[in-house]
Amino acid sequence: MKVNGKDYRTIWLEDGICKMINQNLLPHKFEIFEAKTYQETCVAIKTMITRGAGAIGAAAGFAMAQAAFENPDNNAETFLTKAKIEIEATRPTAQDLFAATARVFEKSLISSEEAVKEAQKIANENVDAGRKIGEFGAELLRDGMRVLTHCNAGWLAFVDWGTAISPVYVAKEQEKSIFVYSDETRPRLQGSRLSAWELYHNDIPHKIIPDNAAAALMQDGKIDIVITGADRIAANGDTANKIGTLEKAICAKYFDIPFYIAAPSSTFDKNCPSGKEIPIEYRSDDEVKMMEGIDSTGNLNKITVANPSSEALNPGFDVTPADLITGYITENGIKNGVENL
Amino acid sequence: MKVNGKDYRTIWLEDGICKMINQNLLPHKFEIFEAKTYQETCVAIKTMITRGAGAIGAAAGFAMAQAAFENPDNNAETFLTKAKIEIEATRPTAQDLFAATARVFEKSLISSEEAVKEAQKIANENVDAGRKIGEFGAELLRDGMRVLTHCNAGWLAFVDWGTAISPVYVAKEQEKSIFVYSDETRPRLQGSRLSAWELYHNDIPHKIIPDNAAAALMQDGKIDIVITGADRIAANGDTANKIGTLEKAICAKYFDIPFYIAAPSSTFDKNCPSGKEIPIEYRSDDEVKMMEGIDSTGNLNKITVANPSSEALNPGFDVTPADLITGYITENGIKNGVENL
Repeated sequence: MKVNGKDYRTIWLEDGICKMINQNLLPHKFEIFEAKTYQETCVAIKTMITRGAGAIGAAAGFAMAQAAFENPDNNAETFLTKAKIEIEATRPTAQDLFAATARVFEKSLISSEEAVKEAQKIANENVDAGRKIGEFGAELLRDGMRVLTHCNAGWLAFVDWGTAISPVYVAKEQEKSIFVYSDETRPRLQGSRLSAWELYHNDIPHKIIPDNAAAALMQDGKIDIVITGADRIAANGDTANKIGTLEKAICAKYFDIPFYIAAPSSTFDKNCPSGKEIPIEYRSDDEVKMMEGIDSTGNLNKITVANPSSEALNPGFDVTPADLITGYITENGIKNGVENL
Repeated sequence: MKVNGKDYRTIWLEDGICKMINQNLLPHKFEIFEAKTYQETCVAIKTMITRGAGAIGAAAGFAMAQAAFENPDNNAETFLTKAKIEIEATRPTAQDLFAATARVFEKSLISSEEAVKEAQKIANENVDAGRKIGEFGAELLRDGMRVLTHCNAGWLAFVDWGTAISPVYVAKEQEKSIFVYSDETRPRLQGSRLSAWELYHNDIPHKIIPDNAAAALMQDGKIDIVITGADRIAANGDTANKIGTLEKAICAKYFDIPFYIAAPSSTFDKNCPSGKEIPIEYRSDDEVKMMEGIDSTGNLNKITVANPSSEALNPGFDVTPADLITGYITENGIKNGVENL
C-alpha cells in the first residue's frame, strides 16, 4: 500500500537482512528498521517494531531463515531448534508466528536456501491472502457504509493489504465510498497511530474515536458493520484478538450490527479446541500509565498520565466467543458460523 | 476525604472566593485553585479545573452566589439572569448544575446573603447525600467483592464522599475488604488520574485497567458488580454518564453482572422523558489526539499521540437505557427499576 504516494510492503528480506517499517515510530516518523540477525529480528518482534498477526508471521519466517544462514553447521538441528524456541517466545499469542516457524524450520533442515525460499513464500502468501480477503470482504460493503474497526488489522499488520481494512481498500477500487471509524485502541493506540495513518495515506475518509465511544456510535446508528482482525481462532470459532474486541462484539450483538473477523486461514488453529485454551499475554503497567508521542518541540517524549502510585492490569488480548461473530472473512471466502470453518 | 492524610472537600466558598482542588493538575500536583469572580468560576467549570456532577453543581451554586455579590444593583434581575445563563452554558449535560443555579438564583433575588446560604446548603446537602449513598450502596458489597467503576464518581466528583466510590469508602469503615478496578476512562483519563489517585490516598486496594479490558475481566469472573455515577437521569431511568458507561452496562448485562448507577436525587430530571432528550456534549479532537502528563524532567508536557492528519470524534457522554441498569443508589435508598424512581 501507499506511503506518501509510494508502494511499500511492511516487511521484507533483502540480502539476509530483515527490513521492516518501524511501527513504534509511526505516525510520527517513517523509518525502515534493519535486523541483521535472527536475534535482532526476535527483538524487533518482541518490542513491536513490527507487529500485527501477519507481519509477525512473516517476521518469524524471515527470522527462522536468518537462523538457517547463521547456523554454524548446516545440519545442526540443535541450533535451529534453539532459534525456533527463541522466535516462538517473542509473542506467545500469535498463531501465524508458530505456523511460519514450523514451515521454515522444516526447510532449514534441508538447506538455508530452501529456508529463505519458504520464508519468502510465506510473505507472498500473506500478500495474496490479504488481497483475497479484501475482495471477499468488499462484497459485504455497500456504497456509503460506515465500518468500525479495532486495533490495526490493516496492511501495516500484514505484509500488504491487511485483513480487517483490506475490504475497504478493495471497495475504494470499486468506487464505493466507505467511511471508517477507528477505535484508538488503548493502551498502545494502534488505531489512532497506525490505522489512522494508513487510512490517511491511502485516502480513506475516517475518524479516530476513543474506544469508549463505539457503543454510543452504534446506538446512534452510525456503524453499519464491525470488522476486526484476529490473532488466533480456535477450532470452535472463538477468536483471540486485541483487548477490547470482545467489548465491541458484545455491543454489536446488542445493537444487532454484523460483526466480522477477517483473517487468513493460517490464523485458524485446529489444535486449539476453544478460546479457553488460548494463552493471553499480560503486558507491562507502563503501557497503561505512560504514553509516548511528539511534544511541542517535535521530539518523541514519554509522559506519565496516570496516578504513579497505582498499579495497572494490562491484558494484551481477549477472546470473543464464536456466537458473537457473524462470520469469518478468509482468503477462501466468507464463512458464516463455526460449522463451516 | 483524605489527601496525604488530611481531610479536604473538593470545593468550598470562603470570603466570596470559590476555592477548589485543581483537578486538571491531578495526580501530578495537588493545588487549590481560587476563583475570585463568578466568571472565573465559570471558566473553572468549563476548563474542568473542577469536574464531576456534584462538584459542578456546587461550583454552579457558588458561582451564582458570587454573581449575587457582584451584582451592581441588588435588584438587577437582568444581571443575575445573564449570569445564570453564562453559568448554565459551561457544561450543558450536567443536571446538577441547572438544579443549583435555579435554587441560588431564586434566593439571589432576595439578597446576596440568602444566595450564599443557599449555595452552602447545596454543598452540604451534596456531602450528606454522598455519605448516605455510601451507606446504602455498602449494603450491596460483601467482603472480598471486586467493583468495576468508570470515570470518576468518587469524592473528587462531588463535594465529599462521592457516589459510585462512596459505598467502597463506607464498606472500608465496616472492615470489608473491597477491591476496585478503575477504567482509565479515555479520553480524559478521569479513572487513572482521579479515581486511582483518591483510592490510593484513602487506602483502597485497586488497579487501573484500559477501558478495553473491562469485558475480558468480566469474562474471567473478576468483576462482581459495576457501579458508576450519572450526569443526568431521565424520567424513564435512562442515564447519561461519561462516554463508555453504555459499553460497560451492555457487557455487564451480557455477563449477568449487576450494574448500578449511584447518584443523588438532584441528578434525576423529571422534565426529561427519556435519554433521547438528553443533549450530548461533543468535545475537542485534541482530547483524543493529545495527552498531558509529567515528562522525565518532572514537568507537565503535552504530546501528540495520534496520526496528526486524522480527525477524531469525541462525544463526552453516552446514554445507558434503563433496562440495562440493575438499580439506582440514591441518598434515599436503592431503587431497583425505573417504576420505583
